[in-house]
Amino acid sequence: MKNRLWSIKEYPFQPEKQLYHETIFTIGNGYLGSRASFEERHDGDTPGTFIHGIFNHSPEMSVPELVNAPDWTRINITIDDTPFQLITTSPNALHPPEGLVLGYERRLHMDIGLLRRTVLFRAATGNTVRIVFDRFASLADEHLMVQRIQIVAIDGTPKVSITSALDGNVTNLGIQHWGHMQADATEDGIISLSGQTNQSGYRLGMASKFTSPEALTTNVDDKFPSVTSVVQLEKDGEATFEKYTTIYTSRDTETPVEIAYAHLSALPDYTSIYEAHSTEWGKYWESADIQIKGDETAQLGVRFTTYHVLIASPRTDDDVNIGAKTLSGFGYKGHVFWDTELFMLPPLTLTNPQMACNLLMYRYKRLAGARQKAQAEGFEGAMYPWESTDTGLETTPKWSDPLPPDNKRIRIWTGDIEIHISSDIAYGVLQYWKWTSDDKFLTQFGAEMVLDTAVFWGSRVEERNNRYEITDVIGPDEYHEHVDNNVFTNKIVQWHLEQALDLLLWLEANANEDYQRLVQQLDISEERLEKWRDIIDRMYIPFDEEKQIHIQFDGFFDMEYIPVEKYSPRVGGIWGYLGHERALNSQVIKQADVVMLMALLGNDVGSREVMLNNWKTYYPRCDHGSSLSPAMHAWVAARLGLMDDATYLLDHAVAIDLEDNKGNVQDGIHGAASGGLWQAITFGVCGLQLTADGPAIDPNLPEHWESVTFNVMYRGEKRTFTATH
Amino acid sequence: MKNRLWSIKEYPFQPEKQLYHETIFTIGNGYLGSRASFEERHDGDTPGTFIHGIFNHSPEMSVPELVNAPDWTRINITIDDTPFQLITTSPNALHPPEGLVLGYERRLHMDIGLLRRTVLFRAATGNTVRIVFDRFASLADEHLMVQRIQIVAIDGTPKVSITSALDGNVTNLGIQHWGHMQADATEDGIISLSGQTNQSGYRLGMASKFTSPEALTTNVDDKFPSVTSVVQLEKDGEATFEKYTTIYTSRDTETPVEIAYAHLSALPDYTSIYEAHSTEWGKYWESADIQIKGDETAQLGVRFTTYHVLIASPRTDDDVNIGAKTLSGFGYKGHVFWDTELFMLPPLTLTNPQMACNLLMYRYKRLAGARQKAQAEGFEGAMYPWESTDTGLETTPKWSDPLPPDNKRIRIWTGDIEIHISSDIAYGVLQYWKWTSDDKFLTQFGAEMVLDTAVFWGSRVEERNNRYEITDVIGPDEYHEHVDNNVFTNKIVQWHLEQALDLLLWLEANANEDYQRLVQQLDISEERLEKWRDIIDRMYIPFDEEKQIHIQFDGFFDMEYIPVEKYSPRVGGIWGYLGHERALNSQVIKQADVVMLMALLGNDVGSREVMLNNWKTYYPRCDHGSSLSPAMHAWVAARLGLMDDATYLLDHAVAIDLEDNKGNVQDGIHGAASGGLWQAITFGVCGLQLTADGPAIDPNLPEHWESVTFNVMYRGEKRTFTATH
Repeated sequence: MKNRLWSIKEYPFQPEKQLYHETIFTIGNGYLGSRASFEERHDGDTPGTFIHGIFNHSPEMSVPELVNAPDWTRINITIDDTPFQLITTSPNALHPPEGLVLGYERRLHMDIGLLRRTVLFRAATGNTVRIVFDRFASLADEHLMVQRIQIVAIDGTPKVSITSALDGNVTNLGIQHWGHMQADATEDGIISLSGQTNQSGYRLGMASKFTSPEALTTNVDDKFPSVTSVVQLEKDGEATFEKYTTIYTSRDTETPVEIAYAHLSALPDYTSIYEAHSTEWGKYWESADIQIKGDETAQLGVRFTTYHVLIASPRTDDDVNIGAKTLSGFGYKGHVFWDTELFMLPPLTLTNPQMACNLLMYRYKRLAGARQKAQAEGFEGAMYPWESTDTGLETTPKWSDPLPPDNKRIRIWTGDIEIHISSDIAYGVLQYWKWTSDDKFLTQFGAEMVLDTAVFWGSRVEERNNRYEITDVIGPDEYHEHVDNNVFTNKIVQWHLEQALDLLLWLEANANEDYQRLVQQLDISEERLEKWRDIIDRMYIPFDEEKQIHIQFDGFFDMEYIPVEKYSPRVGGIWGYLGHERALNSQVIKQADVVMLMALLGNDVGSREVMLNNWKTYYPRCDHGSSLSPAMHAWVAARLGLMDDATYLLDHAVAIDLEDNKGNVQDGIHGAASGGLWQAITFGVCGLQLTADGPAIDPNLPEHWESVTFNVMYRGEKRTFTATH
Repeated sequence: MKNRLWSIKEYPFQPEKQLYHETIFTIGNGYLGSRASFEERHDGDTPGTFIHGIFNHSPEMSVPELVNAPDWTRINITIDDTPFQLITTSPNALHPPEGLVLGYERRLHMDIGLLRRTVLFRAATGNTVRIVFDRFASLADEHLMVQRIQIVAIDGTPKVSITSALDGNVTNLGIQHWGHMQADATEDGIISLSGQTNQSGYRLGMASKFTSPEALTTNVDDKFPSVTSVVQLEKDGEATFEKYTTIYTSRDTETPVEIAYAHLSALPDYTSIYEAHSTEWGKYWESADIQIKGDETAQLGVRFTTYHVLIASPRTDDDVNIGAKTLSGFGYKGHVFWDTELFMLPPLTLTNPQMACNLLMYRYKRLAGARQKAQAEGFEGAMYPWESTDTGLETTPKWSDPLPPDNKRIRIWTGDIEIHISSDIAYGVLQYWKWTSDDKFLTQFGAEMVLDTAVFWGSRVEERNNRYEITDVIGPDEYHEHVDNNVFTNKIVQWHLEQALDLLLWLEANANEDYQRLVQQLDISEERLEKWRDIIDRMYIPFDEEKQIHIQFDGFFDMEYIPVEKYSPRVGGIWGYLGHERALNSQVIKQADVVMLMALLGNDVGSREVMLNNWKTYYPRCDHGSSLSPAMHAWVAARLGLMDDATYLLDHAVAIDLEDNKGNVQDGIHGAASGGLWQAITFGVCGLQLTADGPAIDPNLPEHWESVTFNVMYRGEKRTFTATH
């Protein structure tokens, strides 16, 4: 374990930041993620274990959500009959009536994906123990969760009673997604819990084995099977307990709990499990670590975000995807957004392409849902939902929760009209193919997504005013709804159709059988192609010739101009200060929109002069009300050589989760911001791009950065780059 | 202003850390220090302005304390009649009934000694302003305190009412040290406050000028003279207000308030004042900055501690000294300890010798008090008090405040028997002389202190058991009281007498007139010298020949052994956990004692083998219950090449104030720890020492450190060193 620039810590216990720490200390392995609530629970905590793909649509909710699974981490300890809890003050430290925590440190070791909590606890008797809680979700064996508890007698000869449990008394912040649960225990002390979600019918099975130097007593309460062991410590004595929990769902096997039992019985010892796990982590960092010299905050920050992208990314499952808050919180209900393809996917595409492929396959397998959405809306082809879950159907809620100050619900329009996601997915597919040359994926799966979403666009664009327009949309800037001709959307659709035409030419020449199949299956007629070419030629790209800037959408500059910088220093989003009404009718934008386009399409957007004009226009109008925004801005600022801006924005991006500068880390990690930071550094600061000769860099480093070293996979080969001034 | 690695910030407002930030953001200029309480006040705040030398012995207290002066920072603002306060939540952000802070950032710019707070505030009317509060204590003109308030209309056309006041309603945490106060105002809006301490009779005068674009109205309330100005801002308009406060005491002039008025009338403009101030800061950093490559936390940390040593150090006054908590808090009542000579003095001696000289002169001027103490205790010569104030008399309280759990007062013995301070002062004098070759100081002042404290020791040591012993003392490790033959004390006395003999030889040869004067005045007879030589020869230095270690004091190893590491991770001092009784009778030590000796005397303590043995013995027994301890340990660990330990201890030392890892920063900056860090890096890590050829380094850097660059003054010349691996 390396501490320096590889770990983050909490010392001492900070009760007011409990939920923040639950999120940032989340562990996971791509199969599930578990928040860092305490084994023994604590007032106000929000334990959360989220297993990819396990959604449920409770009748109490308007949309499905990712289900909080039973809490596999539960361990209760008493020392001389004093329950171990995080009590930090007492009138009497020698014989604290309710026990007392004399010391506390918690550290997430990102190098090996291990969370360790060390606590010095004194019982009412005065006897004192040090308890070290380790936990990890095995990266080598994704159905296996491991805990180890070491208890050392510091003062006296304490009697330890330790109870290991599986806790099925869980909800999603009050919403019950589980139907009947069955708790069991075997004669040799293995406990289990199985259950089924109450709408979607997913079945879950967990089994847990506990090791103790002394005998175990089992107890099968409703939804709370447990084993207890009592150990009398000698002076300076210690005892080690291990807990192994295996987890399966009906997505993995027909018989989850049986397989969970079987898996437990075949486990190697702790050391072997730990070593296999840490070896896997070593491999991951070999591929994905970015080394920054000259900025330790950025170094730690990018390791933190890279850690969280990894633990959320399915490694073996190609039928699930990553929610906006990863597997680390209840925010956004586990729903999948464009956050995947344009933010979290690129670092995986470039460092761990197999994991990227899994995510793209999730989209492929949901083409039916996308086609259904297109059809329902009166269009052709495939129109991906703005928010997606297991079904692939549109799951964006229509209404918000009641909002202050007057508890009104606001209509959410993104599911209806934020339609650029179909091109974002095409972008992700094509970026994957260009970096990997995975022709098999392209011909079997990827091309169909790119082409059928192109088919959708052919039917969606509107021929008006002697050109093609796209009206009534929401662009990346979600502060403005029902806008016409959002330049991001129009331009990326134009680019998408160009790519689709190029792709067809490539397929015809290189995979003719697939070409024929797709042309037939998707009805890509010459007439349709003609229309695509016409759209490309005559797509309306709002542009002010006089000022040489793109116009974010029709009428954008007719609204009130509010330079956002004026409202600095701010703590919250600017909407709360301006009010809904005024904000809607102002030029304040939520996040990178024209700037996002410049990040994605680079020089295709316009000359350097136009790009600079766009920057000077849109940067001062941007609220960064979305965590997605700073990294994209940093990327573009670095490309334009505006290094003061780039440096400021990189700092902002780094601080989003670690400093909680949006104030909502308790809801989960900002997954897109995490992937965005990786891109801001590689694509932005280092100027990484694919040239005719393969990947190359063109660095613009912040003044105080000395160098950046990173790896990318290009066509199956690892390339290492070091960027310097 | 440089932000990166030159500033520390609070963002957003952290009410639970209010007192912590008041301390760490303290500004000062060596004349006074002012805590960073808000201009408008806030619930639970503790404003504090401490002027060097102004002590008072209230009848409510057992000892005198440094007096909290009237609050010169006071400024009240209303926006559209809504009082500006740090209110951070409101049910309605558009028309918050009590006003609302929408944004907040505070940053201490250590490069130029300026504190800036920027706040976005909305009045109940919905009108919004940004207020920027700047404050600094001029380093170029130490009687001048400067504030500037800029208010910008962000929304609407707010009406600003601003009141600048001097607030004499101050106490020291409830203790009233001021007698009658007189508030006044002139016709042109200059306000003033004068007062006198109620026991010591120090008189204070403050006068304050306020500038506004609009007219001023004066108001002379009891102890609260103020001027008010009302400014109607236009849309996007702004107004700037300046406040200049001059402060004098009867220590500076017979007529403090008159001089304060006169000084105000002769001030140049803001820009000139600001530039003179920042130029002085530039000079300071030129001399005192340590540049660390490879560890940004340490870099920021040592700048922070260097900043605080500077602002507390009298620049022009040689009759005052620095309290243990500097001028930044109420802790230790402003009393002066050995913290000066062995911790804060060395960085000044080596970088700003004139300031070091001032501190030594304070001791010189208090020889009478030291002689009085010696006499009262039945000894000869000069015996410096453990705690010192303006009088130079012993001011250590005899009893503690009531302590938990049972509100008992504990007898404090340090004033009676922690007597090594007399040698600590001699050490400071001789170190100053060796680095500066300031023979004039030595012959006129320094030698008298070294020699008369030597005279004290000649009378204090006890001839027992065929050797010289020193019984019934407290060493640096204050967990053990009434011990016999503390090795730190015995050894440093031996060293002190050796130095005194050497000094006499030097004086005889180089300053014979002074030599004759001193020999006569201090009665340094041949008989006395013979006794000193005998003491040097036969001083008992407790040592275990078998284990080849020094013994901290007689019987130390007979007590209970408690390896302190066993109690990790701890938050508080170990005494609280062990209880008074058990701790007293254990080998747990509060702070570097034998290790401190190794830091100060280096190879004179013993062979490398003995030094390593001592380290292995005492480091595991040390609680670091004093903030003085980690830096001294880091120093010694680095010298011994134990770089893992050194790195851990440096991190610990860096975190004392910035991470508040002792939990008491609210009481003031840990001045000794601050000066100690400077020494741990220069003397410890870099191995700086005076050789026959002048200063030289012999670095042992922590593995991840790339280099350390620093300057020292040697005999009036600046020498720059860069230490690398």
